[in-house]
Amino acid sequence: MTEATPRSGPSRRRFLGVALGAAGVAAAGGAGFGVARATEPSATEPTAPAPSDQVPFYGEHQAGIATPAQDRLAFAAFDITTTDVHAVQTVLGSWAAAAARMTAGEAIGPTETAPQAPPADTGEAFGLGPAQLTITVGFGPSFFDDRLGLARKRPAALADLPTFPGDALDPDRSHGDLCVQACANDPQVAFHVIRNFARIGRGTVAMRWSQLGFGRTSSTSTSQETPRNLMGFKDGTNNLKAEDTAELNQFVWVGNETDQPWMKGGSYLVARRVRMLIESWDADHLADQETIFGRRKDTGAPLTGRSEFDVVDLSAQAPDGSLVIETDAHIRLAAPSSHGGQRILRRGYSYTDGTDPQTGQLDAGLFFIAFQKDPRAQFVPIQRMLGQHDLLNEYIKHVGSALFAVPPGLSEAGDWFGKSLFG
Amino acid sequence: MTEATPRSGPSRRRFLGVALGAAGVAAAGGAGFGVARATEPSATEPTAPAPSDQVPFYGEHQAGIATPAQDRLAFAAFDITTTDVHAVQTVLGSWAAAAARMTAGEAIGPTETAPQAPPADTGEAFGLGPAQLTITVGFGPSFFDDRLGLARKRPAALADLPTFPGDALDPDRSHGDLCVQACANDPQVAFHVIRNFARIGRGTVAMRWSQLGFGRTSSTSTSQETPRNLMGFKDGTNNLKAEDTAELNQFVWVGNETDQPWMKGGSYLVARRVRMLIESWDADHLADQETIFGRRKDTGAPLTGRSEFDVVDLSAQAPDGSLVIETDAHIRLAAPSSHGGQRILRRGYSYTDGTDPQTGQLDAGLFFIAFQKDPRAQFVPIQRMLGQHDLLNEYIKHVGSALFAVPPGLSEAGDWFGKSLFG
Repeated sequence: MTEATPRSGPSRRRFLGVALGAAGVAAAGGAGFGVARATEPSATEPTAPAPSDQVPFYGEHQAGIATPAQDRLAFAAFDITTTDVHAVQTVLGSWAAAAARMTAGEAIGPTETAPQAPPADTGEAFGLGPAQLTITVGFGPSFFDDRLGLARKRPAALADLPTFPGDALDPDRSHGDLCVQACANDPQVAFHVIRNFARIGRGTVAMRWSQLGFGRTSSTSTSQETPRNLMGFKDGTNNLKAEDTAELNQFVWVGNETDQPWMKGGSYLVARRVRMLIESWDADHLADQETIFGRRKDTGAPLTGRSEFDVVDLSAQAPDGSLVIETDAHIRLAAPSSHGGQRILRRGYSYTDGTDPQTGQLDAGLFFIAFQKDPRAQFVPIQRMLGQHDLLNEYIKHVGSALFAVPPGLSEAGDWFGKSLFG
Repeated sequence: MTEATPRSGPSRRRFLGVALGAAGVAAAGGAGFGVARATEPSATEPTAPAPSDQVPFYGEHQAGIATPAQDRLAFAAFDITTTDVHAVQTVLGSWAAAAARMTAGEAIGPTETAPQAPPADTGEAFGLGPAQLTITVGFGPSFFDDRLGLARKRPAALADLPTFPGDALDPDRSHGDLCVQACANDPQVAFHVIRNFARIGRGTVAMRWSQLGFGRTSSTSTSQETPRNLMGFKDGTNNLKAEDTAELNQFVWVGNETDQPWMKGGSYLVARRVRMLIESWDADHLADQETIFGRRKDTGAPLTGRSEFDVVDLSAQAPDGSLVIETDAHIRLAAPSSHGGQRILRRGYSYTDGTDPQTGQLDAGLFFIAFQKDPRAQFVPIQRMLGQHDLLNEYIKHVGSALFAVPPGLSEAGDWFGKSLFG
């Protein structure tokens, strides 16, 4: 690469500083990194965004779980490439400092810059505002192997997921030591997070896989309409909602029952890349599609009701005595009553990664994300039943899978992802 | 698959009819298909959208070229799988009828439905409105080979693109007999188009490759701000704009000079999948990045100016006599003055397709789209110079390429994409 051209004019910049570049952040190390940066007012343009555009970063729980689901997702799994636990702590701290700024719509670095260093922020989200960005970080089962000496900190609920019936998992799209879920209403704001986290973590963590989700498939607030998945159906009508505080405590947030106090206030994230066999589905009859889901395609009403939120009557019979909602309909097998009342918080996104060059078919479907208090009692039995019986299985294939322990929220500047895990 | 469950209640539906399903559309054939459907008022919900949300489908030129660039893209290339020219015409007509409805925010099919047939619309865009959807269709060089007997209709300007310096093209992401560019402000509305076009065309055309673009990288209207690409720069500041009628006639719309009258009022689309070597770029110094582009990263101003739209002074010298904007800076090599005044209309999008499993690096960059009157005089010489000299080449790789002749706009219901080509 050529040398920089000498330039006339002022050398001061108002953007993309490097005093706290990737190296600078890492060098700060320890417990104090990024504190000043996370709280100092930003001098970047544009002026402060409207509060409605910003989701608070600090709190009892990490944002991005009970937060009303934003429209777009960028998700990444990282693997640790070191055995130096302090280096990992430093990355987690630097991520926290960067996350505090990005969720406020600010560039990662300070506003003074040195031309002969890499920019502290890659710049593509500059001026886009917070866009309701949330950044949620978790630890996979493999994080607690012998490399970092943290095996005794592994929660029992973070048991490896079993193999489910029909699983066709691609290891290149599964598992990981760490995960980052970035949700926002602007995809460039979400992408900016995982790209910069990879940059900050270089030398300590490496990206294992990543996934863009272009449209939310869940509503997690009573203020949101239920969106349609790529099968054209409203799925997840009876999802847990941010407003259901009691249910969240019962089904989502880890409480005193945990064997690992550092997880109290956290949750467990299950991600599944569920490819839809779009071409086959599109050739299926409407009546069959509705039988499979147990809902009408137009209104989303259960086949036993008239409108979307009518209570599902799983025992209703047709005049000939058969069940209106079939034995293996998706809505029946996924119903809490089929699982001792257990529920999960779904927060998935539609994806497409182009066309499968081997078949010419669309590589598209659902990037399923669910949060819960204990996967062993929630996702695992539910998916075991679905994988075995769900009528939908003719049209879907689970090609990726991952599980992460998501620690509680960060209390204030200086706190970081999983800090008490290392205590 | 199980039989549909008998249901009580009315069998009438208000959504996703099948009387004009994929087979029905095709069977209508000839010149009249879809006319009634394209003009009849829709009975689907929700009620008619605000006009500001809808881009007119009929007109002198196809929409999606001079239309102010929408936020999201879904692009697909198709190959013909038949030698039956009438079957191809039928697909193009069915696409036109479907496009007229989708761009109006309507479902593809009529509102009555038969449960024992596939839905006429896959449903995932139902209720999302027009979202400023535009659908632009073009013909690749290979469309004019001997299969359909149309070799004599191939425009001279649709000459195969030469191999450019540095090209590293993946045939699975290049070329195609037909293209469909769907742009909208909602990605699900855009995806819905290529998915349904594939469905409608089954048996006659097959998808060759597809690409989702998550954020626009161009402004094509004076009312739009210049967005940032994934290198964090405002690129394309001096792009042609929808308001520049004289320039559009000079550089974009095919006129009387064409050897193929069916192309008059059309344009030529060049698509290039330009992968960015994100990790290397992010480690490059700010000053070097700015030297490469010839612009400042924060403001987008040329290195010879103070604000973004300042005229670029390519001859300006630093105190030591060197050029302020380097000989091989991107801004210089792409400047009209470096190409006899030639210009192109850029309309590209940022993309990411996850992580390269072989390297762990992000598969992300720019899906470059440009429209022009004659690629031989515009894109080809510009890219030849850029491919040879551009400082940016250290950080990018052209991995996909395609060229399409985009015929003029459709005049009214009953007209279809390239109708006069077959006359």
